Amino acid sequence: MKDTSPEALDAAVRAAHEAFRAGRQVDLSTRASWLEAIAEGLAHDGPALVATADRETSLGRPRLESELRRSIFQLQLFASEVRQGEHLDATIDHSDPAWGMGPRPDLRRVNQPLGVVGVFGASNFPFAFSVMGGDSASALAAGCSVVHKAHEAHPDLAEQTAQTVAAALESAGAPAGLFSLVAGRSAGEHLVDHPLVKAIGFTGSTAGGRALLQHAQSRPEPIPFYGELGGINAVFVTTAAWQQRREAILKEYVGSFTLGMGQFCTKPGLLFVPATGGEEIRRVLLASLDGFTPTRLLSDALLEGYRRAVTEVRGHAGVDVLVEGTFAPEPAPMVLHTTSSRVLADPELLRREMFGPASLIIEYDDESQLPALAQLLEGQLTTTLQTAPGETPSDLVDILAGISGRVLWNGWPTGVTVSYAQHHGGPFPATTSNTTSVGTAAIRRFLRPVSYQSFPLGLLPEPLRDNNPWGVPQRIDGRWHTVPSRQSASV
Amino acid sequence: MKDTSPEALDAAVRAAHEAFRAGRQVDLSTRASWLEAIAEGLAHDGPALVATADRETSLGRPRLESELRRSIFQLQLFASEVRQGEHLDATIDHSDPAWGMGPRPDLRRVNQPLGVVGVFGASNFPFAFSVMGGDSASALAAGCSVVHKAHEAHPDLAEQTAQTVAAALESAGAPAGLFSLVAGRSAGEHLVDHPLVKAIGFTGSTAGGRALLQHAQSRPEPIPFYGELGGINAVFVTTAAWQQRREAILKEYVGSFTLGMGQFCTKPGLLFVPATGGEEIRRVLLASLDGFTPTRLLSDALLEGYRRAVTEVRGHAGVDVLVEGTFAPEPAPMVLHTTSSRVLADPELLRREMFGPASLIIEYDDESQLPALAQLLEGQLTTTLQTAPGETPSDLVDILAGISGRVLWNGWPTGVTVSYAQHHGGPFPATTSNTTSVGTAAIRRFLRPVSYQSFPLGLLPEPLRDNNPWGVPQRIDGRWHTVPSRQSASV
Repeated sequence: MKDTSPEALDAAVRAAHEAFRAGRQVDLSTRASWLEAIAEGLAHDGPALVATADRETSLGRPRLESELRRSIFQLQLFASEVRQGEHLDATIDHSDPAWGMGPRPDLRRVNQPLGVVGVFGASNFPFAFSVMGGDSASALAAGCSVVHKAHEAHPDLAEQTAQTVAAALESAGAPAGLFSLVAGRSAGEHLVDHPLVKAIGFTGSTAGGRALLQHAQSRPEPIPFYGELGGINAVFVTTAAWQQRREAILKEYVGSFTLGMGQFCTKPGLLFVPATGGEEIRRVLLASLDGFTPTRLLSDALLEGYRRAVTEVRGHAGVDVLVEGTFAPEPAPMVLHTTSSRVLADPELLRREMFGPASLIIEYDDESQLPALAQLLEGQLTTTLQTAPGETPSDLVDILAGISGRVLWNGWPTGVTVSYAQHHGGPFPATTSNTTSVGTAAIRRFLRPVSYQSFPLGLLPEPLRDNNPWGVPQRIDGRWHTVPSRQSASV
Repeated sequence: MKDTSPEALDAAVRAAHEAFRAGRQVDLSTRASWLEAIAEGLAHDGPALVATADRETSLGRPRLESELRRSIFQLQLFASEVRQGEHLDATIDHSDPAWGMGPRPDLRRVNQPLGVVGVFGASNFPFAFSVMGGDSASALAAGCSVVHKAHEAHPDLAEQTAQTVAAALESAGAPAGLFSLVAGRSAGEHLVDHPLVKAIGFTGSTAGGRALLQHAQSRPEPIPFYGELGGINAVFVTTAAWQQRREAILKEYVGSFTLGMGQFCTKPGLLFVPATGGEEIRRVLLASLDGFTPTRLLSDALLEGYRRAVTEVRGHAGVDVLVEGTFAPEPAPMVLHTTSSRVLADPELLRREMFGPASLIIEYDDESQLPALAQLLEGQLTTTLQTAPGETPSDLVDILAGISGRVLWNGWPTGVTVSYAQHHGGPFPATTSNTTSVGTAAIRRFLRPVSYQSFPLGLLPEPLRDNNPWGVPQRIDGRWHTVPSRQSASV
């Protein structure tokens, strides 16, 4: 698709603003039905969309189909969450002349949508983090409108998906302009600058995300920038786990770091294992990689970035190559190797994401080093412990919880379920905020609270009325009240 | 007190970091008891603290006593909230092989404290937004440690309050270093820069706040900056309300904008009224101001800023003086006056905060102008409607909710209760975030979520265990479960 002109970008944002205003008062059921209409549209057009995605990427049909399924499910789950009204955080304090600090007026608070949200699509998830991915779906669920900046890695899919979305929204009766698509780097920058845009959702590189964050914070009116910038995803193997199931761990590790050619922000990029000797590890890795067929990466730019990152990491003193890979158009996976004493002397080794099928194994001398090694890490989307039955490394768990958004026990970080308890985030540089871009909690990012003081009941937003016409959970004078029939969470 | 050296600042932050680590695992009841101990300490030392505050400010004892009472109550309310565990947002998704997008692992999420929080005290609230004000109390409630940068307007009170807090925390068994005090502009900047500081709470000017926001976002690791930068607090009077109770409205307006010599971020700085003629308004204002005894402002710097702001506003074309004030050390209140046609032509008139006892009255020609006038405003902490019985200006309410954090109906914005439903925030420049600095929701600012995947129950944080040993609200598979006995909200 063609780059969007500044005039067309401005028109899209203005239309989105009008659609936001027209749509902000609809009831929860209507808003949920818009999400469901999009889900139906995507399901209906699925085969054609997957065909286009398959032509524009090397991810393969099974993965694309499962990613589309995930995106459809996400819309349905968010629709169910919207119907419940959980995200509104409706809170009612009745007036109280005996309130401890002095008489309290009637005060009621509810979350309201921010306005137009700018969303930047990601290259590595043509469905789940692109046109109608997590950021778009959660912004619409919040009641915002969305102007989506397409990723150049799959432009035809972006246009086709946007058409499906627009048709679904139109047939569902949503206001025109609630969702639109723009393209091009310059349109992206104008999107972040536009005064009617009130928040940004971004999935991409640390450098790009950091630049846009500064942009968003330097506007005359700074706006929230929800950036998911990537991850290293360190995995720690205890001595006992290594003794009991070394081969299985290495095999699963290979499966996880090569999945989708390593193009996941949750790819395990570091594996800490007891001192073993490279040869023994190499043997298992080579066996695990036997028969692996590499495919092209998502773009030439991504391949070039991958080459640069891997070359930099293997150039550090004390890093050797355990499994030699390639930077061919279809790169063979690569495993680098070093020791705990090297990374203690040169912690930068642990801070460079290699986005693609490469990972670094660090042999440690003694398990007692793990807390110190973990503390060398920057913020992580995930960290993982591989343990033996009965082990309880509580101190290490606490350290990992302190630096990451999700901690896994005897699992692998690739695979991020969309659910109520998911947190796909983590301290910088994993993300630029303390929020999640996956799961129902992602909706909260695009809301802000407003309190109403001493209002007549009839003028209050429905979720704040005493008769609770929408049946949402209400915290009344400090105590939550739910309407049981609205609390079903079945999807 | 002396300015804190860079070395001493570093030592304070490191001690706070160690205290955070030592204290982060305590149970809710223990953490609540620390807040209660501080409340008791402040109550016990109250007379001495008020005496010092009375010497260092011109606010007067009744106000200072009520502000201290408010601060003590706030700690008690937060302690009650901590005991309930509401702020943890504990969420449990059991594993579900039939989950719509594919099998779901066991996933559980809980909010965890960020770490060391830097808090900047405000000049205008020596208790409620200073050493142990809302930011410090909510950070401690969240489980963070606090390094507080004292405001230079009341340095002795800051030291004395910090001693009370430290003694209370020590006797309650809290880790040393959990709270400490620093002073000086340079220490403040180092505080924002320190790598172990994970969030900033700030109450102050737009210019100062904006500079520190940029600072916080430009660090190698950007951190959240919760800035409450002030407000204009527009009040809109309908024609019918004006006809029915013009004198009462003007009298209450004078009471609100001169309260505490106008040194409130919630001072009504704009009053929109129907075209009346200045003389008639002036008569009522003068009568309302009759007998008003001005006092000194909080500092010479503040007086100078007040003079600059008022001089700038009255220098705009079409602005005249309805009630002449002074810039004497004890400034007489001042009311400026203009018309809706002037502000429509020159909206900057509505965007300059005059921090002190001045306000601007705008006469509008027709009530139908009010939505357009409201849309000229920047983000507001509060907006207010003065109406007659039976009026339902829904469109205007929606616009006001869109630009402010709290909307009042037939009230006045000064006076901010500490409660569950309070939202003391608002779009920029009112604040730099979508959060509140007053009320129990303020605690959430200093927490971030962490998810645990497939963990053994015994290694999970207590709030995420199936047997719920702390009795906190848990959202289990999408549905909230509360333990009734823990849900009492009595304070």
